[in-house]
Amino acid sequence: MSLHDAESRTFASDNYAGVHPEVLAALAAANGGHQVAYGGDVYTARLQQVVREHFGESAETFPVFNGTGANVVALTSMMPRWGAVIAADTAHINTDEAGAPERVSGLKLLTVPTPDGKLTPDLVATEAWGWGDEHRAQPLAVSITQTTELGTLYSPTEVRAIADYAHDNGMAVHMDGARIWNAAAALGVDFRAFTADAGVDVLSFGGTKNGLLGAEAIVVLDPARATGLTYLRKLSMQLTSKMRFASAQLLALFDDDLGIRSAAHANAMAARLRAAIEDVPGLSFSQSTDANAVFAVLDNAAADRIRERYRFYDWDRAAGQVRWMCAFDTTEADVDAFAAAIREELER
Amino acid sequence: MSLHDAESRTFASDNYAGVHPEVLAALAAANGGHQVAYGGDVYTARLQQVVREHFGESAETFPVFNGTGANVVALTSMMPRWGAVIAADTAHINTDEAGAPERVSGLKLLTVPTPDGKLTPDLVATEAWGWGDEHRAQPLAVSITQTTELGTLYSPTEVRAIADYAHDNGMAVHMDGARIWNAAAALGVDFRAFTADAGVDVLSFGGTKNGLLGAEAIVVLDPARATGLTYLRKLSMQLTSKMRFASAQLLALFDDDLGIRSAAHANAMAARLRAAIEDVPGLSFSQSTDANAVFAVLDNAAADRIRERYRFYDWDRAAGQVRWMCAFDTTEADVDAFAAAIREELER
Amino acid sequence: MSLHDAESRTFASDNYAGVHPEVLAALAAANGGHQVAYGGDVYTARLQQVVREHFGESAETFPVFNGTGANVVALTSMMPRWGAVIAADTAHINTDEAGAPERVSGLKLLTVPTPDGKLTPDLVATEAWGWGDEHRAQPLAVSITQTTELGTLYSPTEVRAIADYAHDNGMAVHMDGARIWNAAAALGVDFRAFTADAGVDVLSFGGTKNGLLGAEAIVVLDPARATGLTYLRKLSMQLTSKMRFASAQLLALFDDDLGIRSAAHANAMAARLRAAIEDVPGLSFSQSTDANAVFAVLDNAAADRIRERYRFYDWDRAAGQVRWMCAFDTTEADVDAFAAAIREELER
Amino acid sequence: MSLHDAESRTFASDNYAGVHPEVLAALAAANGGHQVAYGGDVYTARLQQVVREHFGESAETFPVFNGTGANVVALTSMMPRWGAVIAADTAHINTDEAGAPERVSGLKLLTVPTPDGKLTPDLVATEAWGWGDEHRAQPLAVSITQTTELGTLYSPTEVRAIADYAHDNGMAVHMDGARIWNAAAALGVDFRAFTADAGVDVLSFGGTKNGLLGAEAIVVLDPARATGLTYLRKLSMQLTSKMRFASAQLLALFDDDLGIRSAAHANAMAARLRAAIEDVPGLSFSQSTDANAVFAVLDNAAADRIRERYRFYDWDRAAGQVRWMCAFDTTEADVDAFAAAIREELER
Repeated sequence: MSLHDAESRTFASDNYAGVHPEVLAALAAANGGHQVAYGGDVYTARLQQVVREHFGESAETFPVFNGTGANVVALTSMMPRWGAVIAADTAHINTDEAGAPERVSGLKLLTVPTPDGKLTPDLVATEAWGWGDEHRAQPLAVSITQTTELGTLYSPTEVRAIADYAHDNGMAVHMDGARIWNAAAALGVDFRAFTADAGVDVLSFGGTKNGLLGAEAIVVLDPARATGLTYLRKLSMQLTSKMRFASAQLLALFDDDLGIRSAAHANAMAARLRAAIEDVPGLSFSQSTDANAVFAVLDNAAADRIRERYRFYDWDRAAGQVRWMCAFDTTEADVDAFAAAIREELER
Repeated sequence: MSLHDAESRTFASDNYAGVHPEVLAALAAANGGHQVAYGGDVYTARLQQVVREHFGESAETFPVFNGTGANVVALTSMMPRWGAVIAADTAHINTDEAGAPERVSGLKLLTVPTPDGKLTPDLVATEAWGWGDEHRAQPLAVSITQTTELGTLYSPTEVRAIADYAHDNGMAVHMDGARIWNAAAALGVDFRAFTADAGVDVLSFGGTKNGLLGAEAIVVLDPARATGLTYLRKLSMQLTSKMRFASAQLLALFDDDLGIRSAAHANAMAARLRAAIEDVPGLSFSQSTDANAVFAVLDNAAADRIRERYRFYDWDRAAGQVRWMCAFDTTEADVDAFAAAIREELER
Repeated sequence: MSLHDAESRTFASDNYAGVHPEVLAALAAANGGHQVAYGGDVYTARLQQVVREHFGESAETFPVFNGTGANVVALTSMMPRWGAVIAADTAHINTDEAGAPERVSGLKLLTVPTPDGKLTPDLVATEAWGWGDEHRAQPLAVSITQTTELGTLYSPTEVRAIADYAHDNGMAVHMDGARIWNAAAALGVDFRAFTADAGVDVLSFGGTKNGLLGAEAIVVLDPARATGLTYLRKLSMQLTSKMRFASAQLLALFDDDLGIRSAAHANAMAARLRAAIEDVPGLSFSQSTDANAVFAVLDNAAADRIRERYRFYDWDRAAGQVRWMCAFDTTEADVDAFAAAIREELER
Repeated sequence: MSLHDAESRTFASDNYAGVHPEVLAALAAANGGHQVAYGGDVYTARLQQVVREHFGESAETFPVFNGTGANVVALTSMMPRWGAVIAADTAHINTDEAGAPERVSGLKLLTVPTPDGKLTPDLVATEAWGWGDEHRAQPLAVSITQTTELGTLYSPTEVRAIADYAHDNGMAVHMDGARIWNAAAALGVDFRAFTADAGVDVLSFGGTKNGLLGAEAIVVLDPARATGLTYLRKLSMQLTSKMRFASAQLLALFDDDLGIRSAAHANAMAARLRAAIEDVPGLSFSQSTDANAVFAVLDNAAADRIRERYRFYDWDRAAGQVRWMCAFDTTEADVDAFAAAIREELER
């Protein structure tokens, strides 16, 4: 029984969107009969194959429930108990996971301020020191987010530079790919080009923000850099019993390029929004619009007037910064109406 | 694209079964449009209401991903860092969660051997001591499983006796209700009678084993006995972003009594199986068949021959103990054919 | 300024005793001037040498604060995050450390009932299974206590049998040697004979219960079985800054056989006590008196009358079991007077 | 047997110094006879009284092993599992404890850059937000260090301002007083004035850096702000069995003002050093010399030449910053010779 308006959409988050109809169909197709629980099913086996086709023959895939789970379990598999993770201070693992890395796994985060959510070798270097000193949590991994929490994008070359620096200093490289489909669509290259081939060792492979009901995966690209994932996933409470449905969702994104189609559309909607409001007085942009997010700066009062018409989040209220997100189901009409509303409220 | 035989079923686990068609329909109905993420949606609001109708006005519901998550987060909310949990040594939290209670939350389990998976006040008493002694992990909760891991069932009176003992000794009561629908169907009473009204404080409310795709909930029955669940759920990586779909699944179980219908059917299939093989030579039963599980004892070689035809699990191979589980989708024909196979292999 | 009666002694615990005068002298000798903190001092370097002379050339020594710290850090160094430890259910790590293994390191304990506090290969085998099963905490170490919490003693052959079984099954061997000096004195053999040469991999080397102010050490006997101890000791808050004083204490035990002298004396006092009361009516003994503890069974009321005169602990009040401990400073007169008091109260 | 030169001293750390002779005498006085272990002794009882005389009648004292233990256990007692601690990014808990707060207790640190190691209400405010948001680790305590890791000092007024801000925002106040004696000596006021009376709720009360062998204490000033310390101390492996010796050490600092005498001397030696080198060319000072530390900036090569003659630590080698520490046993002659060496190497 439907309790909500299925035609109402916002610019708050790609998590507000529902499930792509092709994904629902994939769930139905995977249903019926019995399949071995906890990953012994044929959909999970097929997912292993498909991921290898896209990420390389050494890839190993571990479906999990959510992005926080993917990040924390991935990072935990990459380091001993004394390890620390270098990350941007805006990283989701630092700001939006309620301390899960610290609390579930005792991970220490060594955070670095950045202008745009992106690390560089120089920024990593500010925390990459102290190996062998028992008083310092040992920097053993670098975590980057693609696309970043600020809607920006690493080029394959930028990823490679960070990975080279990390590996040269004995650190492994993790990518939080909660929006990896948006990145792939924006870059217009294969997944491999900016992950395995660019030196990423372990990936949090996102799906939920791109039209799944709820499924992510840890994809190990360099098995020498991750240990014990089967055990860690279970003990971290991220092992789903009816795994066939998680795998079927993830598989659906690869079928007929659904994931790229959806992400490219979301990206295009963000670009359309940005273009439509680029010249609105009283409005500026704090980040480039590389994928499906527009980070804008405007007067709080104006933002609140717009918010009465369309839900979205403040990013940094003191700085007047807001985030407008597009999803796979955002329509051109949604964008045009929202842009008009922004213009109206700012031109009042 | 379906990759499997949707007509093949086993007696291995209720987790091998898929999703009830009415649940898939509920997912579709909840789809479309945008809904506030992380529980701000209308389905989660409705779930709160429905759970209160069934469990009492003080009930608070927190959807989570899986049973391990429900158990660990629930227990963590019930005690400070120095608390310990008294449980049967066969409890899922002790044997099948890879140490998640200890690893994620630092919980100490004080386990008690039982003949049938059921605690009693006397059994609880063997570990209920040492309060105030800083050297001893402080017993602050009792956890019981309904139905138990051995397929047995607590009566409301039995739950009440444990709860009274626990409360009298300053301990809270947790119920792992991974198969609570099977218990409700077997007892033929409403949920309240053997939970809130019997003194249970916090409940892991199951759904996945009864035909959901994947959704459980923590239901707090006595809010004075649980603290910080919103935070604990998130930091334990059990907060789903598109919560409307978890809530819609759980709601579906209450619609038209789907959950009771499904569980009652699974229970009936187990009873049918037990009845059909009660007189098979070389076969005995280590537990009563109170719900949807048959625990049988037979020769390992015979068990292995049967297993070549139908998948199921050894429970204790040294003791020749096996577990045969029925699910919502087990058919009478499935049972009859399986019973015939058992008879054939044992009468060979 | 002394606030207490330096001539009053009890039979409560070897922790009630103070510091042996030779140890105080060693502290004074190590004082003055500056020494590199955190283990860079000459006393810690010397300790490494001395321990190697006694335990073998591969031994590595890490002074820590206390026995709980030694046990937890040692076990943590022996296993990944998914490991579990098989131990007697009476083990100190299970009963007297407030859950520190679970809470600090997320260790799962798999406990086994024993008649006398001693594991055997058969007892270990009851929990040594399930490797590769992600649902089960993986048994990766066996922990034994020498002398046990019940005052009993493993022979070198018994240790060897456990170690062989453990190693054959991919598990490492930890010895909690809180009373290792009492064991060495009782066995009359070198430390090596019942540790390194008997297959023990990592040892909690005790000192405090044998006349130190407060110092224990983790001694790694097989460096292939322990990882990251320098980091683990620090992050577990067991790294002392002025380590020279911990090392000087431990060294003092090796000087002029102080440790063996002290422990042999404590053992002899326990034997004297046992002999003096062996025939007292109403008194029996639940354990053999292998070292410095007498475990006796008597009427609670009688025990309480004796306790009004001499402090000691109930071990299991329901069973009428008490523990009488002798220390390095227990005198023959103390024992004789205590034995007389026991006899008086029981013969009343 | 002494293995070292008792007349050699450095400027590396107050942890390089040994034990004040009056403290050794106090240990000897506390020795002999039996005392109840784990805090049931008369010295610990006396310590409770003495601390109350100095810190107020509600003070509760919990001796622990070391500063990391004091900090982590104190902070853990001040917040539930979802709490976070606001601290300067130079705080010992952030930089020098190997991640113990995160690893042992799952604490999240919210760190703030400061010019001088000192927080202010405005600096605290940058991280004091997000209460009620389940995605953000909840800021529930502010931790300040007195004297700071950069050798600077909070005035009572400055502490009060932070405490008022913290309390107004529902946060408790922790003071890391590893060098609290140096602070008291520098401020010339009693302990209460800048702790209890200035709004500090829980204190890590230092001793080791001021001439003890090894003893610190958690002092709870507002018992409403800390919970479960007896249990937390034990499960965090910070409970010493022969506690009389920890308490006797701490008591010694209060006897005849030993602690103030020692700290005032160390402070005076730092002032003497600073004065002696204030005009040396090529040398500047990055922090004021408020207590016993001099933070200087000089050429790396010059620093290394000086270091060949006297051991000390770089603080930030890239910035040419070094730390020169004075201890209770630093002599005027030591300072004068060191100042001469600095001058020689810089004037070369």
